[in-house]
Amino acid sequence: MSYQDLKEQAYHANMQLPKLNLVLFTFGNVSAADQKQGLFAIKPSGVPYAELTPDHMVIVDFDGQTVEGKLRPSSDTKTHAVLYKNWADIAGIVHTHSTYATAWAQAQMPIPIYGTTHADHLTVDIPCAPPMEDEMIKGNYEHETGFQIINHFNKLGLNHQEVEMILVGNHAPFTWGKTAEKAVYNSAVLEAVAQMAILTQQISLQAPRLKDSLIKKHFERKHGSDAYYGQK
Amino acid sequence: MSYQDLKEQAYHANMQLPKLNLVLFTFGNVSAADQKQGLFAIKPSGVPYAELTPDHMVIVDFDGQTVEGKLRPSSDTKTHAVLYKNWADIAGIVHTHSTYATAWAQAQMPIPIYGTTHADHLTVDIPCAPPMEDEMIKGNYEHETGFQIINHFNKLGLNHQEVEMILVGNHAPFTWGKTAEKAVYNSAVLEAVAQMAILTQQISLQAPRLKDSLIKKHFERKHGSDAYYGQK
Amino acid sequence: MSYQDLKEQAYHANMQLPKLNLVLFTFGNVSAADQKQGLFAIKPSGVPYAELTPDHMVIVDFDGQTVEGKLRPSSDTKTHAVLYKNWADIAGIVHTHSTYATAWAQAQMPIPIYGTTHADHLTVDIPCAPPMEDEMIKGNYEHETGFQIINHFNKLGLNHQEVEMILVGNHAPFTWGKTAEKAVYNSAVLEAVAQMAILTQQISLQAPRLKDSLIKKHFERKHGSDAYYGQK
Amino acid sequence: MSYQDLKEQAYHANMQLPKLNLVLFTFGNVSAADQKQGLFAIKPSGVPYAELTPDHMVIVDFDGQTVEGKLRPSSDTKTHAVLYKNWADIAGIVHTHSTYATAWAQAQMPIPIYGTTHADHLTVDIPCAPPMEDEMIKGNYEHETGFQIINHFNKLGLNHQEVEMILVGNHAPFTWGKTAEKAVYNSAVLEAVAQMAILTQQISLQAPRLKDSLIKKHFERKHGSDAYYGQK
Repeated sequence: MSYQDLKEQAYHANMQLPKLNLVLFTFGNVSAADQKQGLFAIKPSGVPYAELTPDHMVIVDFDGQTVEGKLRPSSDTKTHAVLYKNWADIAGIVHTHSTYATAWAQAQMPIPIYGTTHADHLTVDIPCAPPMEDEMIKGNYEHETGFQIINHFNKLGLNHQEVEMILVGNHAPFTWGKTAEKAVYNSAVLEAVAQMAILTQQISLQAPRLKDSLIKKHFERKHGSDAYYGQK
Repeated sequence: MSYQDLKEQAYHANMQLPKLNLVLFTFGNVSAADQKQGLFAIKPSGVPYAELTPDHMVIVDFDGQTVEGKLRPSSDTKTHAVLYKNWADIAGIVHTHSTYATAWAQAQMPIPIYGTTHADHLTVDIPCAPPMEDEMIKGNYEHETGFQIINHFNKLGLNHQEVEMILVGNHAPFTWGKTAEKAVYNSAVLEAVAQMAILTQQISLQAPRLKDSLIKKHFERKHGSDAYYGQK
Repeated sequence: MSYQDLKEQAYHANMQLPKLNLVLFTFGNVSAADQKQGLFAIKPSGVPYAELTPDHMVIVDFDGQTVEGKLRPSSDTKTHAVLYKNWADIAGIVHTHSTYATAWAQAQMPIPIYGTTHADHLTVDIPCAPPMEDEMIKGNYEHETGFQIINHFNKLGLNHQEVEMILVGNHAPFTWGKTAEKAVYNSAVLEAVAQMAILTQQISLQAPRLKDSLIKKHFERKHGSDAYYGQK
Repeated sequence: MSYQDLKEQAYHANMQLPKLNLVLFTFGNVSAADQKQGLFAIKPSGVPYAELTPDHMVIVDFDGQTVEGKLRPSSDTKTHAVLYKNWADIAGIVHTHSTYATAWAQAQMPIPIYGTTHADHLTVDIPCAPPMEDEMIKGNYEHETGFQIINHFNKLGLNHQEVEMILVGNHAPFTWGKTAEKAVYNSAVLEAVAQMAILTQQISLQAPRLKDSLIKKHFERKHGSDAYYGQK
């Protein structure tokens, strides 16, 4: 894929964030990667969405070094780099501070699987990584954030191909996918599920977790060899 | 009614869902039926609203078999088919995952009748069917969902002509009506009533159920031979 | 004022309701009165806002009888008529089922005066009339609703010139003013104050009532001979 | 800076408030100051945003006296004047009654620092000044509001260059900055942080305060000599 294609992809995915009401001002970023070349295009740091153009996107390698582009890449670039380097089958990452997902992250609570909207997309509670150790925060913070995510997945035995989202405790969500567009989709799904889960608890503190048979059924409607949702 | 008319009807009703903020991405579907022919037009599965055209609609019979159309119909098609087959006077069905109604479904709670906005449309709490038995889920799931709805109506002694909406526990709402347009209207009313009910409980856990005289008065203003709401 | 002027006034005020997010479908109505002629123009019953024109407005007298117009007036017309007849200095009335104000009405709770946004407009809790007696509901319901409002004001010793809004328990809000435009303004203020009050209680159940000196100061900034808010 | 430039600046900043959903009707105002001349341009009192033009802005000195302009300046003008006079390095002030920030002010509670969205902008809880003494309210109210803000900052040992926002108890927020545009940005950030904080508490009453290392890290990413957020 050419740099230009990668930039266009990252640009269009970034522009979806304000349309989906997932960002205020510049509080979010999307990247689009080419795993073969070991490169990704990412939003420049602190540039308002209204001013963004494809040419503003910065091409960065998987060590977080700028390869092409005049602007400074997103301050979260190293987190993206670590995830691309370690998860070789993802090609899009999104970080937002979307309201409801961020509230769960601030409460340091995973989002319980309460219904089929959640199970259509993943079969477990949406994980919430604990805040990092002080040493990691004072060190290479954004780089360590990537490992905090990967380590939490390993600790819980989660598969990043099945669970394409996480909350970083006290911070905010990250989502990913096989394309930047899919990663944006996951951010919007996460925000919707996060809002429904708060409301569910407000209606009934005794709200039960979705039962296994329904989780399995809904996930398999949309995923795997027997999926029958969408067009072939 | 011609296939084309049925498709146009289904198309226009489907396009109301994003306008009324009742769906995110493709999480919803509307069908429009012709009871005489035993057919309905329904949204294709997983196609974004922005790309939808009348020609995308799929014509399906009341056993859920595609009669005409190139695309795969909504994954919820069999639920629609069962309801049309058993309730011979309805000609429109809507399924959404609208935020507030879905939160009540996830809490597995019927929505209490707290005010006249509710009583203008139905005289009882909005029913919530329990999650299905594991056998039904593993079997012909969407077909069984239709029977879960009908059985819950029968168990509560409800009339589907008076009560045109239900929550399916852990899942989300279904609404119906004499036209697809009316079914969409019911989905929007349900969402508004669901939001008001959550807020009412948050203000006062002692909020009383609407009293019978007010329920009767408001329902009869809009329904039955003595109705005086709207134009003749 | 000519019938045409009155209709234009009522039309423009009605059209503000969807713009201010105060109504869903047809759940609201505004009237504009000429107290000298003892007449008012009101929205026809059940006509969607998108289809409304000034000519649709119905001219009604203060006994609720249609004087001019082809359509049936709002089902709440008699409530408007009673208020105009008894409060000779108001010339606009609005009824909505706006979300937050209706939630307070459903909880049958007055809205406590928690802040200056509230005190800028009135110096007391926003009153909530109790649901009516069964006899009144079964009788001339909308006519009695007008008296329920007036009686509650009398019972609490409130002045309708100072307090231009009320919640009718289990039902929804009514607001009024010296013009239809001012009555619409009051409906939007009520909805904003109702939302802030719910949130205030959620943050702190010990939230104190605004103190008298601040109530007096803020109300008098906007009202009375020493007011200094706005242009002269 | 010419009067015209100052007015344009104030005008454009004021027009951001409705776009950012921070105001209903006329419930807010922005000013833009020239500290060298000891003057600021401010919104006229009670003029709707839709009718506002740059020429409507009023030029006022730091004692709150009108220097140029036909309209009466905002009723909050003296609060702006006191802040400009005492904090010689700010050149923009915003006052709104934005929903969530005002709810915290009404609850008379500072907003706890729960996450990095908050720490990206300030390192402490968002302060809430107590309601003023009755003597101050009855006296030169808006002038005293300015001192209430300054005194609360002094009492808590806060620096107005680092903390550019405050809640005035029972009333609503004020924000400021080196430009009017920055002050508006701060109002939007405050509203977003206020909403997230309410939601965080609703999810978990045990939600912990953000830890010091994360506060320091996030604030220093955006502020000070080692900042690396945004473009150079």
